[in-house]
Amino acid sequence: MASVEIIGIAAISLDGFITRHEEEGTGFTSPEDGAFFRHALGSFDCALMGRRTYEVSRAHILASLSSGRLRVVRTHTPEAFAVDAQAGQLEFTSASLGQILADLAARGKQRCAVLGGTSLYSECLQRDQMDELWLTLEPLGFGSGKPLLKGRLQAQFQLKRVQALSPNTLLLQYRCLRGVSR
Amino acid sequence: MASVEIIGIAAISLDGFITRHEEEGTGFTSPEDGAFFRHALGSFDCALMGRRTYEVSRAHILASLSSGRLRVVRTHTPEAFAVDAQAGQLEFTSASLGQILADLAARGKQRCAVLGGTSLYSECLQRDQMDELWLTLEPLGFGSGKPLLKGRLQAQFQLKRVQALSPNTLLLQYRCLRGVSR
Repeated sequence: MASVEIIGIAAISLDGFITRHEEEGTGFTSPEDGAFFRHALGSFDCALMGRRTYEVSRAHILASLSSGRLRVVRTHTPEAFAVDAQAGQLEFTSASLGQILADLAARGKQRCAVLGGTSLYSECLQRDQMDELWLTLEPLGFGSGKPLLKGRLQAQFQLKRVQALSPNTLLLQYRCLRGVSR
Repeated sequence: MASVEIIGIAAISLDGFITRHEEEGTGFTSPEDGAFFRHALGSFDCALMGRRTYEVSRAHILASLSSGRLRVVRTHTPEAFAVDAQAGQLEFTSASLGQILADLAARGKQRCAVLGGTSLYSECLQRDQMDELWLTLEPLGFGSGKPLLKGRLQAQFQLKRVQALSPNTLLLQYRCLRGVSR
Protein backbone atom coordinates (compact mmCIF):
# COMPACT_ATOMS: atom_id res chain seq x y z
CA MET A 1 0.00 0.00 0.00
CA ALA A 2 1.55 3.29 -1.08
CA SER A 3 1.93 5.83 1.67
CA VAL A 4 0.51 9.31 1.54
CA GLU A 5 2.86 12.21 0.95
CA ILE A 6 2.56 14.52 3.96
CA ILE A 7 3.29 18.20 3.61
CA GLY A 8 3.06 20.62 6.52
CA ILE A 9 1.98 24.13 5.54
CA ALA A 10 2.28 27.07 7.92
CA ALA A 11 2.68 30.82 7.95
CA ILE A 12 4.97 32.10 10.68
CA SER A 13 6.51 35.26 12.05
CA LEU A 14 10.29 35.64 11.94
CA ASP A 15 10.33 34.39 15.53
CA GLY A 16 8.41 31.22 14.74
CA PHE A 17 4.84 31.95 15.85
CA ILE A 18 1.77 30.74 13.96
CA THR A 19 -0.49 33.19 15.79
CA ARG A 20 0.06 36.79 16.88
CA HIS A 21 -0.12 36.91 20.68
CA GLU A 22 -3.39 35.36 21.81
CA GLU A 23 -5.25 36.03 18.56
CA GLU A 24 -6.68 32.90 16.97
CA GLY A 25 -6.11 32.29 13.29
CA THR A 26 -3.77 33.74 10.73
CA GLY A 27 -5.00 37.31 10.52
CA PHE A 28 -1.39 38.47 10.43
CA THR A 29 -0.58 36.88 7.10
CA SER A 30 -0.18 38.79 3.86
CA PRO A 31 -2.67 38.68 0.98
CA GLU A 32 0.10 37.04 -1.06
CA ASP A 33 0.30 34.18 1.44
CA GLY A 34 -3.46 33.79 1.29
CA ALA A 35 -3.35 33.53 -2.49
CA PHE A 36 -0.48 31.06 -2.36
CA PHE A 37 -2.26 28.94 0.24
CA ARG A 38 -5.53 28.73 -1.69
CA HIS A 39 -3.68 27.84 -4.87
CA ALA A 40 -1.42 25.30 -3.16
CA LEU A 41 -4.31 23.47 -1.53
CA GLY A 42 -5.60 22.65 -5.01
CA SER A 43 -2.79 20.14 -5.45
CA PHE A 44 -3.82 18.08 -2.40
CA ASP A 45 -6.48 15.39 -2.29
CA CYS A 46 -6.73 15.57 1.49
CA ALA A 47 -5.96 17.89 4.38
CA LEU A 48 -5.51 17.17 8.07
CA MET A 49 -5.95 19.64 10.89
CA GLY A 50 -6.54 19.87 14.62
CA ARG A 51 -9.80 20.91 16.23
CA ARG A 52 -8.81 24.48 16.97
CA THR A 53 -7.51 25.03 13.46
CA TYR A 54 -10.84 23.75 12.18
CA GLU A 55 -12.89 25.94 14.48
CA VAL A 56 -11.05 29.08 13.36
CA SER A 57 -11.66 28.26 9.69
CA ARG A 58 -15.01 26.51 10.07
CA ALA A 59 -17.17 28.94 8.13
CA HIS A 60 -14.75 29.04 5.24
CA ILE A 61 -14.31 25.28 5.18
CA LEU A 62 -18.06 24.57 5.29
CA ALA A 63 -18.55 27.00 2.41
CA SER A 64 -15.90 25.35 0.27
CA LEU A 65 -16.45 21.61 0.75
CA SER A 66 -15.64 19.51 -2.28
CA SER A 67 -15.55 15.85 -3.11
CA GLY A 68 -12.12 16.45 -4.59
CA ARG A 69 -10.46 17.03 -1.24
CA LEU A 70 -11.18 15.22 2.01
CA ARG A 71 -10.72 17.31 5.13
CA VAL A 72 -9.95 15.34 8.27
CA VAL A 73 -10.17 17.01 11.66
CA ARG A 74 -8.52 15.36 14.63
CA THR A 75 -10.42 15.91 17.86
CA HIS A 76 -10.95 14.12 21.14
CA THR A 77 -14.71 14.54 20.64
CA PRO A 78 -15.65 13.76 17.03
CA GLU A 79 -19.27 13.25 18.10
CA ALA A 80 -19.50 16.95 18.96
CA PHE A 81 -19.02 17.76 15.28
CA ALA A 82 -21.52 15.27 13.84
CA VAL A 83 -23.63 18.13 12.49
CA ASP A 84 -20.72 19.39 10.36
CA ALA A 85 -19.51 16.00 9.11
CA GLN A 86 -19.96 14.94 5.48
CA ALA A 87 -18.50 11.54 4.62
CA GLY A 88 -15.72 11.83 2.07
CA GLN A 89 -15.51 15.62 2.38
CA LEU A 90 -15.27 16.57 6.05
CA GLU A 91 -14.63 13.94 8.66
CA PHE A 92 -13.85 14.08 12.39
CA THR A 93 -11.81 11.46 14.17
CA SER A 94 -10.11 10.75 17.45
CA ALA A 95 -7.84 8.12 15.86
CA SER A 96 -4.07 8.23 16.22
CA LEU A 97 -1.96 9.97 13.61
CA GLY A 98 -0.73 6.59 12.36
CA GLN A 99 -4.28 5.29 12.02
CA ILE A 100 -5.42 8.41 10.23
CA LEU A 101 -2.60 8.23 7.69
CA ALA A 102 -3.07 4.49 7.16
CA ASP A 103 -6.75 5.11 6.53
CA LEU A 104 -6.01 7.87 4.02
CA ALA A 105 -3.61 5.56 2.19
CA ALA A 106 -6.16 2.74 2.18
CA ARG A 107 -8.66 5.11 0.59
CA GLY A 108 -6.22 5.90 -2.20
CA LYS A 109 -5.28 9.39 -1.05
CA GLN A 110 -1.90 10.51 -2.31
CA ARG A 111 -1.09 13.93 -0.93
CA CYS A 112 -2.11 15.31 2.45
CA ALA A 113 -1.66 18.90 3.61
CA VAL A 114 -1.14 19.20 7.37
CA LEU A 115 -2.57 22.59 8.32
CA GLY A 116 -1.78 22.76 12.03
CA GLY A 117 -1.75 23.59 14.74
CA THR A 118 1.33 23.20 16.89
CA SER A 119 0.51 19.69 18.15
CA LEU A 120 -0.12 18.21 14.75
CA TYR A 121 2.97 19.73 13.11
CA SER A 122 5.09 18.56 16.04
CA GLU A 123 3.67 15.05 16.16
CA CYS A 124 4.15 14.55 12.41
CA LEU A 125 7.82 15.54 12.73
CA GLN A 126 8.39 13.56 15.90
CA ARG A 127 6.95 10.42 14.30
CA ASP A 128 8.88 10.93 11.07
CA GLN A 129 5.61 11.29 9.19
CA MET A 130 6.27 14.58 7.42
CA ASP A 131 7.79 14.66 3.94
CA GLU A 132 7.98 18.41 3.45
CA LEU A 133 7.40 21.59 5.42
CA TRP A 134 6.33 24.71 3.56
CA LEU A 135 6.79 27.87 5.59
CA THR A 136 5.60 31.31 4.66
CA LEU A 137 7.86 33.69 6.55
CA GLU A 138 6.07 36.96 7.21
CA PRO A 139 8.26 40.00 8.03
CA LEU A 140 6.92 40.32 11.57
CA GLY A 141 8.12 39.78 15.13
CA PHE A 142 5.55 38.91 17.80
CA GLY A 143 7.43 37.79 20.92
CA SER A 144 4.45 35.63 21.89
CA GLY A 145 1.75 33.50 20.32
CA LYS A 146 1.29 29.84 19.43
CA PRO A 147 4.61 28.31 18.45
CA LEU A 148 5.14 26.45 15.20
CA LEU A 149 6.53 23.45 17.11
CA LYS A 150 6.67 22.22 20.67
CA GLY A 151 8.35 19.48 22.65
CA ARG A 152 11.93 18.44 22.27
CA LEU A 153 12.55 17.92 18.58
CA GLN A 154 15.69 17.33 16.58
CA ALA A 155 14.09 17.88 13.21
CA GLN A 156 16.37 18.49 10.26
CA PHE A 157 15.47 19.76 6.84
CA GLN A 158 16.84 20.29 3.36
CA LEU A 159 15.98 23.53 1.67
CA LYS A 160 14.25 22.71 -1.59
CA ARG A 161 13.05 26.07 -2.82
CA VAL A 162 12.94 29.74 -1.87
CA GLN A 163 10.27 31.87 -3.47
CA ALA A 164 9.39 35.52 -2.84
CA LEU A 165 5.62 35.71 -2.53
CA SER A 166 6.01 39.48 -2.24
CA PRO A 167 8.98 41.82 -1.70
CA ASN A 168 8.89 41.06 2.04
CA THR A 169 7.28 37.62 2.34
CA LEU A 170 9.21 34.45 1.60
CA LEU A 171 7.95 30.96 0.92
CA LEU A 172 10.54 28.42 2.10
CA GLN A 173 9.96 24.83 1.07
CA TYR A 174 11.91 22.23 3.01
CA ARG A 175 12.21 18.47 2.68
CA CYS A 176 12.18 16.72 6.06
CA LEU A 177 15.12 14.44 6.75
CA ARG A 178 13.92 11.15 8.13
CA GLY A 179 15.36 9.17 10.98
CA VAL A 180 17.53 11.93 12.39
CA SER A 181 15.75 12.38 15.71
CA ARG A 182 17.80 11.40 18.69
CA MET B 1 25.30 63.94 17.74
CA ALA B 2 24.93 61.22 15.12
CA SER B 3 23.22 58.07 16.34
CA VAL B 4 24.74 54.65 16.14
CA GLU B 5 23.41 52.20 13.56
CA ILE B 6 22.10 49.18 15.47
CA ILE B 7 22.01 45.78 13.80
CA GLY B 8 20.73 42.68 15.55
CA ILE B 9 22.47 39.47 14.49
CA ALA B 10 21.10 36.03 15.40
CA ALA B 11 21.08 32.45 14.21
CA ILE B 12 17.74 30.71 14.66
CA SER B 13 15.98 27.44 14.00
CA LEU B 14 13.00 27.44 11.63
CA ASP B 15 10.79 27.69 14.69
CA GLY B 16 12.53 30.78 16.03
CA PHE B 17 14.84 29.50 18.77
CA ILE B 18 18.32 30.89 19.41
CA THR B 19 19.31 27.86 21.49
CA ARG B 20 18.54 24.16 21.08
CA HIS B 21 16.49 23.05 24.08
CA GLU B 22 18.35 23.96 27.25
CA GLU B 23 21.81 23.99 25.64
CA GLU B 24 23.61 27.30 26.06
CA GLY B 25 25.23 28.91 23.05
CA THR B 26 24.94 28.37 19.35
CA GLY B 27 26.36 24.88 18.95
CA PHE B 28 23.58 24.10 16.49
CA THR B 29 24.74 26.58 13.87
CA SER B 30 26.44 25.62 10.63
CA PRO B 31 30.13 26.27 9.88
CA GLU B 32 28.91 28.61 7.15
CA ASP B 33 27.06 30.73 9.68
CA GLY B 34 30.17 30.82 11.86
CA ALA B 35 32.25 32.06 8.94
CA PHE B 36 29.64 34.64 8.02
CA PHE B 37 29.39 35.87 11.61
CA ARG B 38 33.13 36.29 12.09
CA HIS B 39 33.40 38.13 8.78
CA ALA B 40 30.36 40.32 9.45
CA LEU B 41 31.61 41.42 12.87
CA GLY B 42 34.60 42.98 11.14
CA SER B 43 32.38 45.76 9.82
CA PHE B 44 31.26 46.87 13.31
CA ASP B 45 33.13 49.19 15.65
CA CYS B 46 31.15 48.00 18.65
CA ALA B 47 29.05 45.09 19.84
CA LEU B 48 26.47 44.86 22.61
CA MET B 49 25.40 41.69 24.39
CA GLY B 50 23.73 40.47 27.56
CA ARG B 51 25.52 38.76 30.43
CA ARG B 52 24.62 35.20 29.49
CA THR B 53 25.64 35.72 25.89
CA TYR B 54 28.96 37.01 27.17
CA GLU B 55 29.48 34.12 29.55
CA VAL B 56 28.91 31.55 26.81
CA SER B 57 31.45 33.24 24.53
CA ARG B 58 33.78 34.56 27.24
CA ALA B 59 36.88 32.53 26.35
CA HIS B 60 36.60 33.38 22.69
CA ILE B 61 35.97 37.07 23.38
CA LEU B 62 38.88 37.38 25.82
CA ALA B 63 41.16 35.77 23.24
CA SER B 64 40.12 38.15 20.50
CA LEU B 65 39.96 41.57 22.16
CA SER B 66 40.91 44.43 19.90
CA SER B 67 40.99 48.19 20.15
CA GLY B 68 39.11 48.27 16.86
CA ARG B 69 35.87 46.99 18.34
CA LEU B 70 34.42 47.82 21.72
CA ARG B 71 32.40 45.04 23.32
CA VAL B 72 29.80 46.19 25.82
CA VAL B 73 28.16 43.67 28.12
CA ARG B 74 24.96 44.62 29.89
CA THR B 75 24.66 43.08 33.33
CA HIS B 76 23.04 43.90 36.65
CA THR B 77 26.41 43.30 38.34
CA PRO B 78 29.20 44.92 36.30
CA GLU B 79 31.47 44.83 39.37
CA ALA B 80 31.47 41.01 39.19
CA PHE B 81 33.29 41.22 35.86
CA ALA B 82 35.94 43.78 36.86
CA VAL B 83 38.67 41.23 36.29
CA ASP B 84 37.67 40.82 32.62
CA ALA B 85 37.12 44.51 31.85
CA GLN B 86 39.49 46.44 29.60
CA ALA B 87 38.51 50.04 28.97
CA GLY B 88 37.77 50.67 25.31
CA GLN B 89 37.75 46.98 24.44
CA LEU B 90 35.51 45.12 26.87
CA GLU B 91 33.24 47.02 29.22
CA PHE B 92 30.47 45.98 31.59
CA THR B 93 27.56 48.21 32.47
CA SER B 94 24.21 48.20 34.20
CA ALA B 95 23.08 51.32 32.35
CA SER B 96 19.83 51.45 30.41
CA LEU B 97 19.78 50.64 26.71
CA GLY B 98 19.22 54.31 25.90
CA GLN B 99 22.16 55.36 28.06
CA ILE B 100 24.42 52.73 26.51
CA LEU B 101 23.57 53.80 22.97
CA ALA B 102 23.95 57.50 23.80
CA ASP B 103 27.35 56.76 25.31
CA LEU B 104 28.45 54.82 22.22
CA ALA B 105 27.38 57.72 20.01
CA ALA B 106 29.20 60.22 22.22
CA ARG B 107 32.34 58.15 21.84
CA GLY B 108 32.05 58.29 18.06
CA LYS B 109 30.93 54.73 17.48
CA GLN B 110 29.01 54.29 14.25
CA ARG B 111 27.85 50.70 13.94
CA CYS B 112 26.84 48.40 16.79
CA ALA B 113 26.09 44.69 16.48
CA VAL B 114 23.52 43.46 19.00
CA LEU B 115 24.41 39.84 19.69
CA GLY B 116 21.63 38.79 22.05
CA GLY B 117 20.12 37.27 23.91
CA THR B 118 16.33 37.34 23.88
CA SER B 119 15.97 40.31 26.25
CA LEU B 120 18.33 42.57 24.37
CA TYR B 121 16.91 41.80 20.92
CA SER B 122 13.38 42.34 22.26
CA GLU B 123 14.17 45.56 24.08
CA CYS B 124 15.91 47.06 21.04
CA LEU B 125 12.85 46.35 18.91
CA GLN B 126 10.38 47.46 21.54
CA ARG B 127 12.19 50.78 21.97
CA ASP B 128 12.55 51.31 18.22
CA GLN B 129 16.32 51.17 18.58
CA MET B 130 17.11 48.52 15.97
CA ASP B 131 17.88 49.49 12.38
CA GLU B 132 18.34 46.03 10.90
CA LEU B 133 17.93 42.41 11.93
CA TRP B 134 20.14 39.79 10.31
CA LEU B 135 18.86 36.26 10.78
CA THR B 136 20.66 33.10 9.86
CA LEU B 137 17.93 30.52 9.38
CA GLU B 138 19.28 27.05 10.08
CA PRO B 139 17.30 24.10 8.65
CA LEU B 140 16.35 22.74 12.06
CA GLY B 141 13.29 22.42 14.27
CA PHE B 142 13.73 22.36 18.05
CA GLY B 143 10.31 22.76 19.66
CA SER B 144 11.97 24.34 22.69
CA GLY B 145 14.89 26.57 23.60
CA LYS B 146 15.46 30.28 24.14
CA PRO B 147 13.20 32.29 21.85
CA LEU B 148 14.50 34.98 19.52
CA LEU B 149 12.02 37.47 20.97
CA LYS B 150 9.73 37.75 23.97
CA GLY B 151 7.01 40.02 25.22
CA ARG B 152 4.23 41.43 23.13
CA LEU B 153 5.82 42.92 20.07
CA GLN B 154 4.37 44.29 16.86
CA ALA B 155 7.69 44.49 15.03
CA GLN B 156 7.60 44.88 11.28
CA PHE B 157 10.43 44.48 8.83
CA GLN B 158 11.36 45.00 5.21
CA LEU B 159 13.33 42.25 3.55
CA LYS B 160 16.53 43.75 2.26
CA ARG B 161 18.51 40.73 1.13
CA VAL B 162 18.37 36.94 0.97
CA GLN B 163 21.65 35.08 0.73
CA ALA B 164 22.29 31.33 0.77
CA LEU B 165 25.19 30.74 3.16
CA SER B 166 25.03 27.06 2.18
CA PRO B 167 22.50 24.94 0.25
CA ASN B 168 20.36 24.69 3.39
CA THR B 169 21.18 27.77 5.45
CA LEU B 170 19.78 31.18 4.58
CA LEU B 171 20.88 34.62 5.70
CA LEU B 172 17.90 36.97 5.77
CA GLN B 173 18.65 40.63 6.25
CA TYR B 174 15.72 42.79 7.28
CA ARG B 175 15.34 46.52 7.83
CA CYS B 176 13.28 47.32 10.91
CA LEU B 177 10.29 49.58 10.34
CA ARG B 178 10.21 52.30 12.98
CA GLY B 179 7.20 53.55 14.85
CA VAL B 180 4.86 50.73 13.97
CA SER B 181 4.44 49.25 17.45
CA ARG B 182 0.94 49.60 18.79
